[in-house]
Amino acid sequence: MSTDDVRDLGFARVDLDRERRCGRPEVVFGPGKLPGEVAEISRALVQAGQRVLVTRATDEQYQAVVAELPEARFHPRARCIRVGEPTLSPQKWSVGVLCAGTADLPVAEEAAVCLESFGRTVDRVNDVGVAGLHRLLGEVGRVRSHGVLIVVAGMEGALPSVVAGLVQRPVIAVPTSVGYGANFSGLAALLGMLNSCGSGVTVTNIDNGFGAACAADDILRLGEN
Amino acid sequence: MSTDDVRDLGFARVDLDRERRCGRPEVVFGPGKLPGEVAEISRALVQAGQRVLVTRATDEQYQAVVAELPEARFHPRARCIRVGEPTLSPQKWSVGVLCAGTADLPVAEEAAVCLESFGRTVDRVNDVGVAGLHRLLGEVGRVRSHGVLIVVAGMEGALPSVVAGLVQRPVIAVPTSVGYGANFSGLAALLGMLNSCGSGVTVTNIDNGFGAACAADDILRLGEN
Amino acid sequence: MSTDDVRDLGFARVDLDRERRCGRPEVVFGPGKLPGEVAEISRALVQAGQRVLVTRATDEQYQAVVAELPEARFHPRARCIRVGEPTLSPQKWSVGVLCAGTADLPVAEEAAVCLESFGRTVDRVNDVGVAGLHRLLGEVGRVRSHGVLIVVAGMEGALPSVVAGLVQRPVIAVPTSVGYGANFSGLAALLGMLNSCGSGVTVTNIDNGFGAACAADDILRLGEN
Amino acid sequence: MSTDDVRDLGFARVDLDRERRCGRPEVVFGPGKLPGEVAEISRALVQAGQRVLVTRATDEQYQAVVAELPEARFHPRARCIRVGEPTLSPQKWSVGVLCAGTADLPVAEEAAVCLESFGRTVDRVNDVGVAGLHRLLGEVGRVRSHGVLIVVAGMEGALPSVVAGLVQRPVIAVPTSVGYGANFSGLAALLGMLNSCGSGVTVTNIDNGFGAACAADDILRLGEN
Amino acid sequence: MSTDDVRDLGFARVDLDRERRCGRPEVVFGPGKLPGEVAEISRALVQAGQRVLVTRATDEQYQAVVAELPEARFHPRARCIRVGEPTLSPQKWSVGVLCAGTADLPVAEEAAVCLESFGRTVDRVNDVGVAGLHRLLGEVGRVRSHGVLIVVAGMEGALPSVVAGLVQRPVIAVPTSVGYGANFSGLAALLGMLNSCGSGVTVTNIDNGFGAACAADDILRLGEN
Amino acid sequence: MSTDDVRDLGFARVDLDRERRCGRPEVVFGPGKLPGEVAEISRALVQAGQRVLVTRATDEQYQAVVAELPEARFHPRARCIRVGEPTLSPQKWSVGVLCAGTADLPVAEEAAVCLESFGRTVDRVNDVGVAGLHRLLGEVGRVRSHGVLIVVAGMEGALPSVVAGLVQRPVIAVPTSVGYGANFSGLAALLGMLNSCGSGVTVTNIDNGFGAACAADDILRLGEN
Amino acid sequence: MSTDDVRDLGFARVDLDRERRCGRPEVVFGPGKLPGEVAEISRALVQAGQRVLVTRATDEQYQAVVAELPEARFHPRARCIRVGEPTLSPQKWSVGVLCAGTADLPVAEEAAVCLESFGRTVDRVNDVGVAGLHRLLGEVGRVRSHGVLIVVAGMEGALPSVVAGLVQRPVIAVPTSVGYGANFSGLAALLGMLNSCGSGVTVTNIDNGFGAACAADDILRLGEN
Amino acid sequence: MSTDDVRDLGFARVDLDRERRCGRPEVVFGPGKLPGEVAEISRALVQAGQRVLVTRATDEQYQAVVAELPEARFHPRARCIRVGEPTLSPQKWSVGVLCAGTADLPVAEEAAVCLESFGRTVDRVNDVGVAGLHRLLGEVGRVRSHGVLIVVAGMEGALPSVVAGLVQRPVIAVPTSVGYGANFSGLAALLGMLNSCGSGVTVTNIDNGFGAACAADDILRLGEN
Repeated sequence: MSTDDVRDLGFARVDLDRERRCGRPEVVFGPGKLPGEVAEISRALVQAGQRVLVTRATDEQYQAVVAELPEARFHPRARCIRVGEPTLSPQKWSVGVLCAGTADLPVAEEAAVCLESFGRTVDRVNDVGVAGLHRLLGEVGRVRSHGVLIVVAGMEGALPSVVAGLVQRPVIAVPTSVGYGANFSGLAALLGMLNSCGSGVTVTNIDNGFGAACAADDILRLGEN
Repeated sequence: MSTDDVRDLGFARVDLDRERRCGRPEVVFGPGKLPGEVAEISRALVQAGQRVLVTRATDEQYQAVVAELPEARFHPRARCIRVGEPTLSPQKWSVGVLCAGTADLPVAEEAAVCLESFGRTVDRVNDVGVAGLHRLLGEVGRVRSHGVLIVVAGMEGALPSVVAGLVQRPVIAVPTSVGYGANFSGLAALLGMLNSCGSGVTVTNIDNGFGAACAADDILRLGEN
Repeated sequence: MSTDDVRDLGFARVDLDRERRCGRPEVVFGPGKLPGEVAEISRALVQAGQRVLVTRATDEQYQAVVAELPEARFHPRARCIRVGEPTLSPQKWSVGVLCAGTADLPVAEEAAVCLESFGRTVDRVNDVGVAGLHRLLGEVGRVRSHGVLIVVAGMEGALPSVVAGLVQRPVIAVPTSVGYGANFSGLAALLGMLNSCGSGVTVTNIDNGFGAACAADDILRLGEN
Repeated sequence: MSTDDVRDLGFARVDLDRERRCGRPEVVFGPGKLPGEVAEISRALVQAGQRVLVTRATDEQYQAVVAELPEARFHPRARCIRVGEPTLSPQKWSVGVLCAGTADLPVAEEAAVCLESFGRTVDRVNDVGVAGLHRLLGEVGRVRSHGVLIVVAGMEGALPSVVAGLVQRPVIAVPTSVGYGANFSGLAALLGMLNSCGSGVTVTNIDNGFGAACAADDILRLGEN
Repeated sequence: MSTDDVRDLGFARVDLDRERRCGRPEVVFGPGKLPGEVAEISRALVQAGQRVLVTRATDEQYQAVVAELPEARFHPRARCIRVGEPTLSPQKWSVGVLCAGTADLPVAEEAAVCLESFGRTVDRVNDVGVAGLHRLLGEVGRVRSHGVLIVVAGMEGALPSVVAGLVQRPVIAVPTSVGYGANFSGLAALLGMLNSCGSGVTVTNIDNGFGAACAADDILRLGEN
Repeated sequence: MSTDDVRDLGFARVDLDRERRCGRPEVVFGPGKLPGEVAEISRALVQAGQRVLVTRATDEQYQAVVAELPEARFHPRARCIRVGEPTLSPQKWSVGVLCAGTADLPVAEEAAVCLESFGRTVDRVNDVGVAGLHRLLGEVGRVRSHGVLIVVAGMEGALPSVVAGLVQRPVIAVPTSVGYGANFSGLAALLGMLNSCGSGVTVTNIDNGFGAACAADDILRLGEN
Repeated sequence: MSTDDVRDLGFARVDLDRERRCGRPEVVFGPGKLPGEVAEISRALVQAGQRVLVTRATDEQYQAVVAELPEARFHPRARCIRVGEPTLSPQKWSVGVLCAGTADLPVAEEAAVCLESFGRTVDRVNDVGVAGLHRLLGEVGRVRSHGVLIVVAGMEGALPSVVAGLVQRPVIAVPTSVGYGANFSGLAALLGMLNSCGSGVTVTNIDNGFGAACAADDILRLGEN
Repeated sequence: MSTDDVRDLGFARVDLDRERRCGRPEVVFGPGKLPGEVAEISRALVQAGQRVLVTRATDEQYQAVVAELPEARFHPRARCIRVGEPTLSPQKWSVGVLCAGTADLPVAEEAAVCLESFGRTVDRVNDVGVAGLHRLLGEVGRVRSHGVLIVVAGMEGALPSVVAGLVQRPVIAVPTSVGYGANFSGLAALLGMLNSCGSGVTVTNIDNGFGAACAADDILRLGEN
């Protein structure tokens, strides 16, 4: 590990070695950074020949980035800024991103957009919550065809348990803050998923579509080695 | 409301008017009462011509009751003492008690035994948790045949959401304290059920099989009026 | 279960079979949906010959719906959009909606408007919190005349316990987020109702007037079968 | 304030000046003290001419005290040790200690025994929980006759709200840990009482009968000055 | 208890009998009421010959009230509207309202203004938090001269414990939501006060200056009987 | 999905189809089952030609199983009963199980024993908590050689964050209940891992070594397809 | 302790003796104070020959102060107002302020600016979170050169544990509210730091950079005596 | 950092380099270790010429250690095992360990015994809780004479705030789990101390006397460099 791989901007040390060390370039977490700071980090990454992915970005941050890097693109529902396209190669497995309800879409889209930025193929399966089970049962074949499943749900967060009972694939559960009252901003879905009776379900932080995308990417990369 | 309907034993006021007022005789909650106190209340109820039902009873409490009232019976898994049999009349509807896992049985049995003590017909459908959905799907016809459904589950408590999407009947969800870690003694199942995306699900306290039985009894009584 | 009964709009799968399967058409949960999406779902339901009910709706969502469906009506205190009137038939039982205080009215109104949309008769009994018990005691006859009672209360949520001791009917308790400080956004009322010493009380999520209406509707439908 | 009024035993500083300063002698909190230490503190108080009151005492602690001070008495349900009798003088007001259920008796008895140790007259009104309101309504005259009301309740803790709406007297609410599940060891009752819609209700810690007795004693002393 | 003493406005039942029953007229809790509703309740009270006190009032609510009742006065820091002056009679005891820090003033002022509206004499002792103990120790004589002490503090809420060790009077502790981080909106101060080692301290809800004023008023009224 | 694959024992429905459907045979969760019930389920699995794995088993449950199935083996630190050996085939990847401290060993051993029961090769890397970072840094090469990493830690649960920054492999974080005080039975470690700044970390329930083993097994199976 | 050292402004008592008693002048906590009140306190301190430091200040408060005291300076990221410069003397030790991520900078800057206002030398070491450990390991020499280390981190708050394993110096951990979801506004970082396996780590409130600065100042002052 | 300094016992890696790196030898945390494991680690440390300190030790663990190392000593109230004496040198500063109540003594003793094992001089100031402030005020001179203050308190945990207002020294606050009800096993004291209005107070985990001793040792070592 060499410190040459770090670019110190004062307010941030940009990790230029992360792609080699962890398999993905550093991703910029938008909150708490001034628009100009996001732009400065983005430029440093581009100058080092890396792609840029900013999550939880605001429109104001996007404006600052695109002023410097005109090729930047914004995904508003996913709240992501991207600069540069990944090199795509034929892949054995795709990722299924299941979403329980319409209100969970921002989190599911964050996962999907991040995966696409990592060069993965994504299949979005929306609005298949357990209250109308036939919606999910009608898609079982499609769901079973993917290498990894990211299952995004708010409220009681029951979808991953049901999915895990139907497939042999790794299931990554993402609780969302969708709901009200005793949902406690996603706590209900989080606890539900942590206590899933479906074996092998692992869980990310509430609303952490990005983390689920990273985990899915790590899993698929393993199959490629 | 007359105070003549109350028998004051010093440590407890036995409500002899509750059956007329609320449709069921007073039920004795075991915890915090000395065995002799449970026996004394039971005797007062029997003397007033009422049946006895003690919930959360210990074996020690049962020994004290049976010494006074030899016809008393103990249901160990349900932790209930009963004295006297209800008058049974032909009924339009039965109650389905669904239980997600073996460890949830004490709560499901408390609901079932209480309902039987109220003169209701019960169908026990055990071990149909959502992790193996075909177990539940194989029983859909049976589940739909009942007037009310009591759905007992621990861990993530997802079963009521799935059941509510399959039936037109009132669904009473009972979270249990079965689980560990981030289950927080039933909190996960409780929050899951309160946030159920299945419309019309109502919820009792954690492990409260008795309360679910009372609610089911109230609902069926309404249909009989 | 056939997938023909689902209309896939991309961001949502509209469940056109729910009325047959669960006894009520699908209800649209407003939060997290763009105004145009609410309008599109509403149109799909109307095209399939179904009535529309949107809960937790904003005025902006209503404007989008009414632009497409001029017969849409908005209930501001209840925050509901309705399109279409239910077929009314003579009914044996009405629903009493009791409300502890003025600030709890939005939740009580959500319950009442949803019930009316399901074709039920509702009697609103407002401002009968336990701090002035004579207000409730003066209405006991009226309260006892209804088939089901929905009891809406914030702060300490004590009203359902008192009501349950006065009636033989199913009591559905709805905690509200009304209060401050150690109310913790409705947690106090929720816990109070879950721990109610009144037997047979069941509970919905905080502020979930819609869920209480569904449960009451399920109960009354049972009596009609 | 002089340090002469403190007797330093190494593990404890016995406050011999508290009666003059705060109106009551120091009371010994039993938990965490070895039986011999409780005995040693008790002897120091007696040597200084003071009465002794130990709360939350174990039988083992009592045995150690009575071996030194044969006049010591133990109140098992209240878990209190007392040595010495208060000087009784005619009093204007008595204290009503209301108790919601049998399982709440240890806390109510702690309050009552402590008050008697302070020389107060106590009226115990047991098992008047709100689920059977007529039990309380039948005692309204008796309840209104007291100068201060200590209201002890577990589960949802609704009793103080109802009492406060019936009387003009100070109401001290004591939540107990009686209950299970979402009671969370008394949290439900505590939050219920803190959010009481009954104006003027103040609250002690869960199970703190001693604290309620002190507050009632302070209030009555004020009326005597 | 007669229902003639209740004025039903549809959205609210105004309790015109409360002064006779509980010693104080009904007080209007502002949140959740439309400005016009606050004005209508206020007018009903004035028409019945009662004074008006609205707590947690907004300026908008005040404008609606003063348009109807020009004699209405607004106390902005206390957020109270008052109409009518209490009849003052010579009193034996005054109330000391102690306030730990400047940011706690709105709660302390709510207590003080409510007490003045009840006809009590108040002494405000501000900014005497325990971090600079000499500020409090310099006021001990003044603090001891009052009949009841209301002690308002946020952050760790330690002030009531210290005050209770210095006086023989009833101490009512009011936690405030002042603080940040692990204060959790007043939870830290609330728990601190509930666990006070100062005997006889009772506690109100977070920020509940009104409740403390009611409790103090009840206590002083007792001394006057 | 056929119900022929379910063996109904009354108290449990044994899922004989799970290996085909989910890739692993059903695993028996010990808590809440009587020793005889565990033995009966085990015998049913063996009769169906399946291996047996019981987690969270007690010695009493083991005695009941071994009386029926003499080839049963008990792993006391892991609290697992196993019957039957997996068919081993050459594998591309092994699993590294990292354990922060000695007290975390029961959870790490549960993961390791379950993995071995699934036919996986495990490398145990014990006592590499972050307080002495050189212990971990000295094992980086070994850690990087595995296909999946299960990282078990209690207290603050920081180890997965550090590991994730050093490797390109999937990291499954398992919080344990090891610790005291503000650890809140594993909550601190759980929250720490959910908030890990190491990208791609996913999390299981507290103490859920079994769940981590299932997830690791799912991931490695994917690479074998 | 003399009350002459307190300047009573009505809404606040300014402690003019604190520097002598505690080693630092009183610092003004901005929230909850009107701009004019902050200005009035500042002027009182300046009139008494003291420096001024206001924390959590708003721009509006700064405008009020600078209108009275033109030499006032505002530090926007740290949200601090300062008036007057400390007397600097040669010092043996400096303070290292380590910051895990860019979003934690406001808290780290509050600590740094407060320390500079106390006359301490500060070295800012930014963006050295544990996800990229080599960033910290590249600065070990610099980190070890300081007398005290303030370590500021949000999310899982793992940095202090790692730092404490590398140095012999006092480590003060400051959790921040940076993060989302199961971070619960800094609770995750707070619990992580309280449970640190690094011996000797002590912790301040969430976001309390000021408190950490005071603690560091107290420690360095000790070395100067 | 060399791995030669680690002795790998399989279940534990004994850090033989910690004294050089962190200023103190590794301390053994007893819970979760078998008695034989504690003995084996102790022997490894003695063989490497280091002293032994085991915290949270049981009598059973002590018996295993003393069987191997006859010079081992047990401190039952502090629950510590020590082997070997520190080299004492004249020191500028001692540590004051203040303890609020008798029940807090185990935690205070853990801090004191650990400090003595590190070669520090300790002054125990017991039973000086804030409810009887004159007990503390009578010891102010003694309290001010120490270089660092460790302040141990349960219940509301107010003592550190008061102490911090009286001294210029670093104050380390240690919350204990002493209390009941809304104390929530030390949470009340922990939150109270984290929110202390006394500037410069830092906090350890609940009951963590050992951590406070380490922090005090680090601070005094700094003054010696």
